[in-house]
Amino acid sequence: MEFLVRSENRLPVDTPAERREELRSAERARAMELRAAGVLKRLWRVPGRTATIGLYEADDPAALHDALMSLPMAPWLDVQVEALATHPQERA
Amino acid sequence: MEFLVRSENRLPVDTPAERREELRSAERARAMELRAAGVLKRLWRVPGRTATIGLYEADDPAALHDALMSLPMAPWLDVQVEALATHPQERA
Amino acid sequence: MEFLVRSENRLPVDTPAERREELRSAERARAMELRAAGVLKRLWRVPGRTATIGLYEADDPAALHDALMSLPMAPWLDVQVEALATHPQERA
Amino acid sequence: MEFLVRSENRLPVDTPAERREELRSAERARAMELRAAGVLKRLWRVPGRTATIGLYEADDPAALHDALMSLPMAPWLDVQVEALATHPQERA
Amino acid sequence: MEFLVRSENRLPVDTPAERREELRSAERARAMELRAAGVLKRLWRVPGRTATIGLYEADDPAALHDALMSLPMAPWLDVQVEALATHPQERA
Amino acid sequence: MEFLVRSENRLPVDTPAERREELRSAERARAMELRAAGVLKRLWRVPGRTATIGLYEADDPAALHDALMSLPMAPWLDVQVEALATHPQERA
Amino acid sequence: MEFLVRSENRLPVDTPAERREELRSAERARAMELRAAGVLKRLWRVPGRTATIGLYEADDPAALHDALMSLPMAPWLDVQVEALATHPQERA
Amino acid sequence: MEFLVRSENRLPVDTPAERREELRSAERARAMELRAAGVLKRLWRVPGRTATIGLYEADDPAALHDALMSLPMAPWLDVQVEALATHPQERA
Amino acid sequence: MEFLVRSENRLPVDTPAERREELRSAERARAMELRAAGVLKRLWRVPGRTATIGLYEADDPAALHDALMSLPMAPWLDVQVEALATHPQERA
Amino acid sequence: MEFLVRSENRLPVDTPAERREELRSAERARAMELRAAGVLKRLWRVPGRTATIGLYEADDPAALHDALMSLPMAPWLDVQVEALATHPQERA
Repeated sequence: MEFLVRSENRLPVDTPAERREELRSAERARAMELRAAGVLKRLWRVPGRTATIGLYEADDPAALHDALMSLPMAPWLDVQVEALATHPQERA
Repeated sequence: MEFLVRSENRLPVDTPAERREELRSAERARAMELRAAGVLKRLWRVPGRTATIGLYEADDPAALHDALMSLPMAPWLDVQVEALATHPQERA
Repeated sequence: MEFLVRSENRLPVDTPAERREELRSAERARAMELRAAGVLKRLWRVPGRTATIGLYEADDPAALHDALMSLPMAPWLDVQVEALATHPQERA
Repeated sequence: MEFLVRSENRLPVDTPAERREELRSAERARAMELRAAGVLKRLWRVPGRTATIGLYEADDPAALHDALMSLPMAPWLDVQVEALATHPQERA
Repeated sequence: MEFLVRSENRLPVDTPAERREELRSAERARAMELRAAGVLKRLWRVPGRTATIGLYEADDPAALHDALMSLPMAPWLDVQVEALATHPQERA
Repeated sequence: MEFLVRSENRLPVDTPAERREELRSAERARAMELRAAGVLKRLWRVPGRTATIGLYEADDPAALHDALMSLPMAPWLDVQVEALATHPQERA
Repeated sequence: MEFLVRSENRLPVDTPAERREELRSAERARAMELRAAGVLKRLWRVPGRTATIGLYEADDPAALHDALMSLPMAPWLDVQVEALATHPQERA
Repeated sequence: MEFLVRSENRLPVDTPAERREELRSAERARAMELRAAGVLKRLWRVPGRTATIGLYEADDPAALHDALMSLPMAPWLDVQVEALATHPQERA
Repeated sequence: MEFLVRSENRLPVDTPAERREELRSAERARAMELRAAGVLKRLWRVPGRTATIGLYEADDPAALHDALMSLPMAPWLDVQVEALATHPQERA
Repeated sequence: MEFLVRSENRLPVDTPAERREELRSAERARAMELRAAGVLKRLWRVPGRTATIGLYEADDPAALHDALMSLPMAPWLDVQVEALATHPQERA
């Protein structure tokens, strides 16, 4: 099943640049693994914010939760999940 | 998977008593079928309102949608669905 | 550019079944044209509601507006549009 | 009587891992006691968040308050309680 | 247990004066019965609105629900209930 | 005149236990004085929160303000006041 | 004591012009009486809306309620009242 | 001074096409007059909605109010006005 | 033109008493100057909060902005401004 | 395409004056470059706040995002972007 995931990054502004870069590249690496696994299907930026909107696929909300918590940035992310129902137009 | 379903009944106040009763008993009958099928697991009233909170189980959001739309009151219900993730405390 | 489009259908409950069906099939037909044109890329149902979330692509907000207003249900839709920025992960 | 309890965990991100683990296991132990006592009946995770939704049973709101405040994480929890009325469908 | 009950009266403005008066005096009579029964303990007006805030006492939320639904104005009332916990200062 | 006063206690979680206890007992003592003076008439806890709902009586909003600011916890309280109008049912 | 009163006029758009004019001039006449009585001290329009913000003075919220309900437009007004405390700067 | 004006058009869906067209062209004509007078400086559509965002210039809020109320659609517009302060970057 | 100005004081609770007193008396002095200049016309306290509601007069929003920013407390104030339109009842 | 950009500046109050001034003048310089490039078209202050409303033009939301993130103050700005559709009145 698919989920729409809105995520605001609350990493403090005064996080040292090195730490920030380390987190960002670990985040990118883990995101790429989730893409390869078919869990992360699309990702957009909310313009003007350190926030993203993602389209995820997972077996159930618990599996999605585990995937989101596996992101290195997870402790700083404020996440809102919305479960999506397949539309009949797309069932065929 | 389980869902928390909040439902406000917007049936107009001036609906004739007979029509209202007919809808209510059809609603009750369909709810009982959903209970028997294991889809509707618990149902509470929000005190003071013609509103309910229900605990549902369905294969996915589309199946939940179909179950909710099968309720005779569906056209008048304002429904908010929240997908629940199994808590590790309950997985064992 | 891509847009996330949330749409609540406010068609009155007492719309005659025939009129409702006519609108629904005209809506489906127009949606299929928008898919064929690459404007409507994905469509989901918000479970429990007569509401959808869609992923659209259009040249600019004015073109998106025209596409959305070409839907036969448009007069009854309460629409919220969010412009999405391509994420660097997907630029490559 | 039953209550729906929504709880956001605001434990600061920079809490030392050891302290965090200590709190988590104390929390789990106390939750298990509340389950054994019939106070905590169900617990779910809100996917993507360090938040839970719980179904509690207590004699009255004061007893529920005492139970919630007995959780080791209580000082960091932002809790919203909703009193539930038994639905006639379940009275029988 | 005690409840704080906020109630907005949505009786349509164009309700005939006679019907309105009939409802008002039936409402007052039923409220007086609830006072006599110890269910309605205090009642205030929200200044400038056809709205009230009431302090109620009932065995549980279901009993409160039944009391509120016994009011002749109930079909037009938009009610919000908040369960109150006895404060230790008042337990003695 | 009477006021409904909702108060969230924002005292930081890391306040030393001794300081917290000192504030709590000073708060209790001052609350008791306000009760004796007929200013604080009822006090409830919002279940699950370090928050209260109180029924106060004061000559006017400025007198209420002074009473609330005389509480030792005042600097940490987030307070919302609602002025209540006597209901005709209670005027007699 | 003084109150800030925000008032949205919900008189239906299709009210006959004559009825509307009648209400408006009755409203103006009653407002002038309230000014003469020192109850209505200032009145502003919220630009772009059929809404006003008023500064009122009344003995207590019940007296304010009666004054507001004496306005011929009262049945169509959506009113929010805020009790104001005299500021020490103005007490002298 | 300049104002940002957000305007939702609530003209009922069942307004006869002829009446709607008449209103629309009268609206356009009046808008053009306001442009010519330097009152309406820019106008955008909110994509997906019958809503606009406009940049207006007027001597004061009362003059803006009169300009907005002179629009033939005014009785159906839900308008929110925000007063803008000239930014020092643009004062030079 | 007149403005309604709502202002929440976010000065941290742990500001040293001396610094706080210094700021308060500088604030009072500047407020008195603004009164003398006819900019600050009325000031109220929001009961229970370190917040005020003020009635200001200024040539335009930029002049109001400069007046508000001249207050010594400005860096800690969370301010909401609402432009008021003169009501025809008061134009005469 | 054009965007309306609302931006709240959350730079901490205790930022040293020198650092603050440095950031402000770098911000001003970068804003001037964006003006010269035709990206920043208008800028207003929200009266009473360290907030701005800007009218921007960019090829798409990703280009706008890059422009906004190039501002030296970006890490402290809380930004809301709204995509604007050209109004037919202005297409000619």
